[in-house]
Amino acid sequence: MKMIEGGVCAPIGYMASGVHAGIKDSSPKDKLDCALIVSTQPAYVSGVFTKNLMKSPPVYWNQKVCEAGEAQAVFINSGNANAATGEPGHEDVKTTAEWVANGAQYGPENVLICSTGVIGVPLPMNKIENGVDDCIDALSAQRGLDAAKAIMTTDTEAKEYSVEFELGGSMVRIGAVAKGSGMISPNMATMICILTTDANIAKEAMYPLVKAAADISFNRICIDNDMSTSDTVMLFANGRSDIEEISIGSPEFSEFQTALNEVSTHMAHWLVKDGEGSTKFVEIKVSGTENNDDASAVARAIGNSQLCKTAFFGEDPNWGRFAAAIGYAEAQFDPTHLKISLNSILLCDGGIAADFVEEDAAAIMKKGEFTIHVSAGSGPGEAVFWTSDLSHDYVSINADYRT
Amino acid sequence: MKMIEGGVCAPIGYMASGVHAGIKDSSPKDKLDCALIVSTQPAYVSGVFTKNLMKSPPVYWNQKVCEAGEAQAVFINSGNANAATGEPGHEDVKTTAEWVANGAQYGPENVLICSTGVIGVPLPMNKIENGVDDCIDALSAQRGLDAAKAIMTTDTEAKEYSVEFELGGSMVRIGAVAKGSGMISPNMATMICILTTDANIAKEAMYPLVKAAADISFNRICIDNDMSTSDTVMLFANGRSDIEEISIGSPEFSEFQTALNEVSTHMAHWLVKDGEGSTKFVEIKVSGTENNDDASAVARAIGNSQLCKTAFFGEDPNWGRFAAAIGYAEAQFDPTHLKISLNSILLCDGGIAADFVEEDAAAIMKKGEFTIHVSAGSGPGEAVFWTSDLSHDYVSINADYRT
Repeated sequence: MKMIEGGVCAPIGYMASGVHAGIKDSSPKDKLDCALIVSTQPAYVSGVFTKNLMKSPPVYWNQKVCEAGEAQAVFINSGNANAATGEPGHEDVKTTAEWVANGAQYGPENVLICSTGVIGVPLPMNKIENGVDDCIDALSAQRGLDAAKAIMTTDTEAKEYSVEFELGGSMVRIGAVAKGSGMISPNMATMICILTTDANIAKEAMYPLVKAAADISFNRICIDNDMSTSDTVMLFANGRSDIEEISIGSPEFSEFQTALNEVSTHMAHWLVKDGEGSTKFVEIKVSGTENNDDASAVARAIGNSQLCKTAFFGEDPNWGRFAAAIGYAEAQFDPTHLKISLNSILLCDGGIAADFVEEDAAAIMKKGEFTIHVSAGSGPGEAVFWTSDLSHDYVSINADYRT
Repeated sequence: MKMIEGGVCAPIGYMASGVHAGIKDSSPKDKLDCALIVSTQPAYVSGVFTKNLMKSPPVYWNQKVCEAGEAQAVFINSGNANAATGEPGHEDVKTTAEWVANGAQYGPENVLICSTGVIGVPLPMNKIENGVDDCIDALSAQRGLDAAKAIMTTDTEAKEYSVEFELGGSMVRIGAVAKGSGMISPNMATMICILTTDANIAKEAMYPLVKAAADISFNRICIDNDMSTSDTVMLFANGRSDIEEISIGSPEFSEFQTALNEVSTHMAHWLVKDGEGSTKFVEIKVSGTENNDDASAVARAIGNSQLCKTAFFGEDPNWGRFAAAIGYAEAQFDPTHLKISLNSILLCDGGIAADFVEEDAAAIMKKGEFTIHVSAGSGPGEAVFWTSDLSHDYVSINADYRT
């Protein structure tokens, strides 16, 4: 598998654009805030969405479109989440989809809509209308990066990625664009990730692929443990590459899944690294529990702990806090079997302090990236999770977000 | 019920002391770090403890003593939690209890031990031995406040409280001392609260009383959502007041429960107000859910949310964040029935923005204390929860705790 240029436009048959529509009044003039990604021919589409009860109108809309399973466009605005906007919010989604489909070969029922930003404020529909028009005019196979820029909220980097690999004797491509740096928690985050591919995928294989990819990537990260109303991961597949249709259970299905997992994981890690105020990227690997669920609970407990996250920020190898979080994870194991390591340095052995040099451990934490290994015994359970630290900048960003 | 002086020594027949033993090397010379509270005659005792799997050796010890149900002394050190210290940690608890009981009319099996501070470091037993000796020498019915000071870790205020009220025709008293300002989360917190009373309580009534009091107070607060290895609430009752024994189900049982609840709630609120970096005291009241569990889940979701807590700090009436937290609480209700108010200002009505003046809402949040009311419909469920904000100082305190 080889990294290539182009983001969502890297696969054959996709165009994108990003424009400034002034949706957030205080945004600088050059801030892009509307994005459009289009497949030049009909594509299958599937997605996974937030489990938040207060899910936004666009999420309801996209779930319906994904149930039907065919789409050709996704329009995304930043600056306003169109969440907690009631019936008018639902109407606004429909209207936006109609604008996008106006003059196209596809109908509004083939248009996906995402909105991200402040919750509880009606969409400024006059600006959205201009945004849609300008996005359609600007569509180009060279403008994936504009789309990546347009969907940013507190992100500091535009996030796109694309790869190419051989599948069934031909080359196929996967492209990705994503945003999200706060309100990030499993299931999922105030995040949007659009994946495109020119692979030829059977309709019924779409959901298993995107679900599995999200589960091992976006559902394994945490910035602040707050699940948003808008989280969305969607995969388009337009079959433009020269390969046989991939059906569930075939060798090509597995190979494609592996590639999709890699792309999703790359994007998920990027979200954490660019997380609000993030100065550390921490991998938490847990093994030795009775089952994977227990391992996952332990990994998440550390990854979500405010005290562990401030210790990461403080570059303090305070494994007692890790042990406390492990202890309240509600996993069952013998505490006297607990081992905690920081990269290769054993901090805790048999539930008590190991013999290590504090300064060596602190030196590891001064690096931007490190791994905490937790072993809870000899069981087969294992899990991995990625998290950021909790810094002063996180507090500043979120205390002042709207003002 | 009347507030009186004396803290844990306010009830008849209790003495206390607090001394400096230098347990934390870097502590200032005058920092008290060992406390002793003694009932001059045998008392019943019961308690509730952390559910953390990594519970500390003192917690195991106290659970055993409380099962037997009779004790006369509790020794508490700050600066070291004696947690994640393995078998030597258990030995150290036993040795400390023996030192406390040495020369007394009670045995080590009637001595409770609490330790709070850094996790994973063996207790400095030579210092503990001096601390025990000095505490015994200093015992006095006038030194409740010294005990309160000695158990502080990152607390900025010594926390003691005592009340007097009539029960069954006589006056009885309840005293309390508590510590804990970080690692605070339901079930419970890195908190210790010792309650004393001279009421004459039936042995089998002890646990129901302390359990119910903890459930509506210490188990309804959150500072940082981290459950500690050491959380302990214990009630001593020595029967020195001139009243009949209180048995389960009697009118006096209910009256005593009410008073104990009031004292526990007072202490729990104090922990939040003095929470690490806390600048706000936020009450969250939820009603209208199908049952109390759903109401509680909603209240906790807001109280634990990093994004809500930074909004409190930022004095930003960003109800969209509250709505997002409510939505992921896993409570079931119709989002179109959701109402959110800040004190008397309606922010969200029917799941969408209400017509309110942003500045008025912000002005309320500038006050140190306010209430968020959430109504989810017309069900009978209700719950209350108290939380602090997430401030720069929280991050500073916890990034630098050990160094």
